[in-house]
Amino acid sequence: MKKDHPPVEYSDYLQLHKILNSQDRKSEEHGAPAHDETLFIIIHQTYELWFKQILHELDSVMDMFQHDYVDEKNIGVAVSRLHRISEILKVLINQIRILETMTSQDFLDFRNFLTPASGFQSFQFRTLEIKLGLKLEERIKFSQQAYHTHYIPEKQAELLDMESKPSLFELLQTWLERTPFLERTGFNFPEAYRKAVDKMLSEERSIIQNNPGISDAEKAERLKMMAASEKHFASICDASIHNQFIAEGRRRLSYTATLAALFINLYRDQPILHLPYRLLAEILDIDELLASWRYSHALMTLRMIGRKTGTGGSAGYGYLKSTADSHRVFADLFNLSTFLIPRSQLPELPEKLQRQLSFFFTMEKE
Amino acid sequence: MKKDHPPVEYSDYLQLHKILNSQDRKSEEHGAPAHDETLFIIIHQTYELWFKQILHELDSVMDMFQHDYVDEKNIGVAVSRLHRISEILKVLINQIRILETMTSQDFLDFRNFLTPASGFQSFQFRTLEIKLGLKLEERIKFSQQAYHTHYIPEKQAELLDMESKPSLFELLQTWLERTPFLERTGFNFPEAYRKAVDKMLSEERSIIQNNPGISDAEKAERLKMMAASEKHFASICDASIHNQFIAEGRRRLSYTATLAALFINLYRDQPILHLPYRLLAEILDIDELLASWRYSHALMTLRMIGRKTGTGGSAGYGYLKSTADSHRVFADLFNLSTFLIPRSQLPELPEKLQRQLSFFFTMEKE
Amino acid sequence: MKKDHPPVEYSDYLQLHKILNSQDRKSEEHGAPAHDETLFIIIHQTYELWFKQILHELDSVMDMFQHDYVDEKNIGVAVSRLHRISEILKVLINQIRILETMTSQDFLDFRNFLTPASGFQSFQFRTLEIKLGLKLEERIKFSQQAYHTHYIPEKQAELLDMESKPSLFELLQTWLERTPFLERTGFNFPEAYRKAVDKMLSEERSIIQNNPGISDAEKAERLKMMAASEKHFASICDASIHNQFIAEGRRRLSYTATLAALFINLYRDQPILHLPYRLLAEILDIDELLASWRYSHALMTLRMIGRKTGTGGSAGYGYLKSTADSHRVFADLFNLSTFLIPRSQLPELPEKLQRQLSFFFTMEKE
Amino acid sequence: MKKDHPPVEYSDYLQLHKILNSQDRKSEEHGAPAHDETLFIIIHQTYELWFKQILHELDSVMDMFQHDYVDEKNIGVAVSRLHRISEILKVLINQIRILETMTSQDFLDFRNFLTPASGFQSFQFRTLEIKLGLKLEERIKFSQQAYHTHYIPEKQAELLDMESKPSLFELLQTWLERTPFLERTGFNFPEAYRKAVDKMLSEERSIIQNNPGISDAEKAERLKMMAASEKHFASICDASIHNQFIAEGRRRLSYTATLAALFINLYRDQPILHLPYRLLAEILDIDELLASWRYSHALMTLRMIGRKTGTGGSAGYGYLKSTADSHRVFADLFNLSTFLIPRSQLPELPEKLQRQLSFFFTMEKE
Repeated sequence: MKKDHPPVEYSDYLQLHKILNSQDRKSEEHGAPAHDETLFIIIHQTYELWFKQILHELDSVMDMFQHDYVDEKNIGVAVSRLHRISEILKVLINQIRILETMTSQDFLDFRNFLTPASGFQSFQFRTLEIKLGLKLEERIKFSQQAYHTHYIPEKQAELLDMESKPSLFELLQTWLERTPFLERTGFNFPEAYRKAVDKMLSEERSIIQNNPGISDAEKAERLKMMAASEKHFASICDASIHNQFIAEGRRRLSYTATLAALFINLYRDQPILHLPYRLLAEILDIDELLASWRYSHALMTLRMIGRKTGTGGSAGYGYLKSTADSHRVFADLFNLSTFLIPRSQLPELPEKLQRQLSFFFTMEKE
Repeated sequence: MKKDHPPVEYSDYLQLHKILNSQDRKSEEHGAPAHDETLFIIIHQTYELWFKQILHELDSVMDMFQHDYVDEKNIGVAVSRLHRISEILKVLINQIRILETMTSQDFLDFRNFLTPASGFQSFQFRTLEIKLGLKLEERIKFSQQAYHTHYIPEKQAELLDMESKPSLFELLQTWLERTPFLERTGFNFPEAYRKAVDKMLSEERSIIQNNPGISDAEKAERLKMMAASEKHFASICDASIHNQFIAEGRRRLSYTATLAALFINLYRDQPILHLPYRLLAEILDIDELLASWRYSHALMTLRMIGRKTGTGGSAGYGYLKSTADSHRVFADLFNLSTFLIPRSQLPELPEKLQRQLSFFFTMEKE
Repeated sequence: MKKDHPPVEYSDYLQLHKILNSQDRKSEEHGAPAHDETLFIIIHQTYELWFKQILHELDSVMDMFQHDYVDEKNIGVAVSRLHRISEILKVLINQIRILETMTSQDFLDFRNFLTPASGFQSFQFRTLEIKLGLKLEERIKFSQQAYHTHYIPEKQAELLDMESKPSLFELLQTWLERTPFLERTGFNFPEAYRKAVDKMLSEERSIIQNNPGISDAEKAERLKMMAASEKHFASICDASIHNQFIAEGRRRLSYTATLAALFINLYRDQPILHLPYRLLAEILDIDELLASWRYSHALMTLRMIGRKTGTGGSAGYGYLKSTADSHRVFADLFNLSTFLIPRSQLPELPEKLQRQLSFFFTMEKE
Repeated sequence: MKKDHPPVEYSDYLQLHKILNSQDRKSEEHGAPAHDETLFIIIHQTYELWFKQILHELDSVMDMFQHDYVDEKNIGVAVSRLHRISEILKVLINQIRILETMTSQDFLDFRNFLTPASGFQSFQFRTLEIKLGLKLEERIKFSQQAYHTHYIPEKQAELLDMESKPSLFELLQTWLERTPFLERTGFNFPEAYRKAVDKMLSEERSIIQNNPGISDAEKAERLKMMAASEKHFASICDASIHNQFIAEGRRRLSYTATLAALFINLYRDQPILHLPYRLLAEILDIDELLASWRYSHALMTLRMIGRKTGTGGSAGYGYLKSTADSHRVFADLFNLSTFLIPRSQLPELPEKLQRQLSFFFTMEKE
């Protein structure tokens, strides 16, 4: 900032001559200008602009986690940038209401001119999914074909190349696996946690069994529910069950990373763990908002074109709705809540570890 | 308004001594006050207040449609009140974000004290579903039992009694069936529509067949898609197919009512049809927002309790998510968009009918 | 839609090569790339895209009102398009939250590179204000200069030329003045309204005077308030007072147009008046949302740059906040609510007029 | 959680018999039931419920800051609870749209029955303002009387008593004044900051003076702007100017607290400062959202009753709008952004202080 510069002008800076001259309606080209096609073009352009911004944030966060050592100063920055992605996603969801002011009949005025273009072809959205960690084999097939075959060869190669690099999911997993607190401090978290769970469950069982106020049938029912709960906990207390679940595709996050995430969630009030906790929470938000976006998008499509196939030949309601659930990448973080235990049952941290988890806020003696 | 009245005081008027003294935390009763239980209580209370308001609006609208003749002056009022329901639903969806500031771990601090209470027991929400038109046999079973068996006998009777009365769905259907334009004017809408559809489809087919620029394989593909489209249209051009679909549970709205709704959608720019069109659009909005609410609610539950069963013993993520789709009452209105045809292909209305659909805005000669 | 066409591709259609390649950061040019400048550029580009869409809708509505006779079929369309503007404005307001994820300190990283560019220079936003009806002489001065002098000569000329053409305000005024019900039907609305107001006010006065339960001091207080109310009503019952207010710049809408708008508001349940009523309501929404947008924008600016002047040299918080109120064009429509009277006091319409205001929904005898 | 408990039932738990039976319409009492009065009652009840929740959060946060020493573990909790307040305020702002579905004319159907009740009488809202730190003498007078005289004597006493206790503003100020980094570390922040500011300003001045590309007039203009900027900075570099501003009512936050807040903002990426930074940011959000709420509320009132006085005798548009700005408590935090300097100009922290501001994340040697 050491030099003065020629005056900057608003519309030059924003390159508005390009931005505002990129709306050519197909309906006009065909001699039947449809008023609402302008909206259709502009809303998609704003979506693409926001996707670019989301990728800009995501890339910068992934970059911070690319290294063997994640600079502690960056966690706060990463949290803020992930939070920005959430704020953008909220706007993307709300924007759907603008598109819904276009009726189905208005859409018909130009829909046929657009075939076979489809939002499915958004390269930036595919990129976003890949960078988050969605794998080719987890994707719902579309027109019986893998999604990338719908692109031209160079683009296909680009997508496959991206898939071969570590995604946010993988970077996060590696970072979690490195959490230094789990073994090296004399505190055996997995062991302590397992004991706490056992104690909690056995107390619950005995409370049910000794309750004189409920019938035998109800007792049996409650004990059956407890058994389900016990099975759940078993799957996190035993690495081999967890790994079995991974092999079956029911879980994805590695055992060590899962334990670390659980530890961070359980002890998030420890000052040092608070930002890591916020990081996980922001990722949850993004995952949930993306699911909401997909679902709202599906409903809007249903309203607009009914059960017809989309302009691209297929991406109708059924396909879009099913991705809301199955294209979620961080489902394992959601499921963590199954393994939390009440604060009153939490194993207490050894004093030394507690000190390590606190800030040394007071001044050193000199 | 002919008399003066004693001064009204804000907190008396709102009965705040009751409203603000109805938050007794179970956790406090058990000697372990949980900060966030207050939020849990208050947010549910606001939901119930809004449900009361929604029912107030819905009842008033249903009342207008209860009669053999719907006063034209009421359509505008009905549209406004249905729109109010939409605005309330938007707030109910947004409110979920407030609840999400409570973490899963915070919930654990009091969750066990609440069993087996569950939002599933909201009597007002069941009432709302019934009044919209959700039938017992269409509901997803819950703990292998019909939903009403989860209430005490008097409440069960009340719910079944409500189900036996005409719902908004049925009132709307009757009103649509009475639309006077369909036959009595010399304009045979079903016939004219069928012809327009045939013409449109045969032109499309011939365009594909005569396109020298596409391969035979692609031609075949496009013609296959057209065949699907033709089958769709056949189902609305032929009462017997429609009725067959109703028998199979794939459609619900009667054939006559469906045609009337289609007519209103196709000719909505005719002044007289504009308000009826807005009425249908408001109902669509409500249906869509309710689906969004259900889906957001399901995601929030997943985040809060993972794959565990709910406090009531069962209403977990799977149940809640599946209701988003299957408890929608007005799906047939959504699907109408499948049957719209472009304005350029619309059969023109006879001049006499057009006059009947316009306002006589000019002055009568005296 | 009579010809097949070459396949359309998503990113070509949206001209993404232009849209997504228009983000050149000044900070990068100066060798100090600032992460958040990308956000700053992209959010402004989405604003400009949405402004383009708003102008597209506004132009089409103004076009409908350009003529001596407004086709009744167009009112419904105009209402829908104005409503779309409202939905866009809601998103523009919500988008501010995205920008607020950029902190003041982050902004400093590139702010100096942008001088003297400023959102104040948005040509589309000025256009929008002019088309709504904001006049040069009503604008708050900015750096002691009329706003248009901040543009290059051609742009200045373009703005002044736009100002010389009828704005939405003027078109609406003309349309209201033409409302046919006010005189030609034997129903003298101004007269009937004046009588109803007099009756209402004299009853209120006598109720106060005869209330034994309140002190003389309170009586005096209430009568003083009534006097204020009477003065208000006088200004609408007497054209000369109204015109005096216009001369003083306290009102803007002509007397006849004001009466017509009042008539439409009071009798909006009459079927024919419902759409005109909705039209006025949509314009109110836009006016209110624009004020909200301006205020939120002002607060965001305050948070971002404190009391400093803006990059353009001046448009800081004070300026922006003051426009929220003073750049509102349709304040007179807001103030109409001052002149409404309860339904129970409304003069009844003569039967013949009522018939004219209804749809002739029943069939003609042949 | 050591005992089983009798089954809890949803509607008992939420005390719905009270919540849902507290809507008695005055219009009904007067024999003229107005449909929309139900909405008017219910929306105000939801506002009061949310105010209760906001106070619940605020009280808990103030409690944490009540002590000589603020437990570091609590900062994260405080940030979360303040954030919850923001999320509630967003819903309160959005809820206004529901009320706006009631028209001015519909309001007239029952408005007169409510006098002189007024939202101005909300005791909880006054409490909120006081707890945040709004002082009696800073309040805009209302009907020429201090606000508390509008309550019954006991309530007046309660309000004045609350005012005499430390507000969030004061607790925050004390906490900021205690920030340990400002002097005890050999790093003289005020001094280092002052030097950095001087260097930055003198460079800017010389850049302008040596720019051959701008006219003398423009040079003079830019130097004038710089002088304003210099004056601003002077006010924060010199305690006596700051204190003078406090005496004049132009600032409120003490000099030491202001410096601490500035330090936290400038060095927020230091791990230890991140949560304190977030705390200040959450308070800014609340202040901004409250201003937005007040402004939206004012606009809604204007739309509903025009320029008439409110039911309580006075709280019309003018009053409400003016509170949006003048009842803001944390304006000094907003203005902080005026004093930030670019990262590139920030004085570097001594290595020892940097270490103190980092986590000791690595393991101690034993």
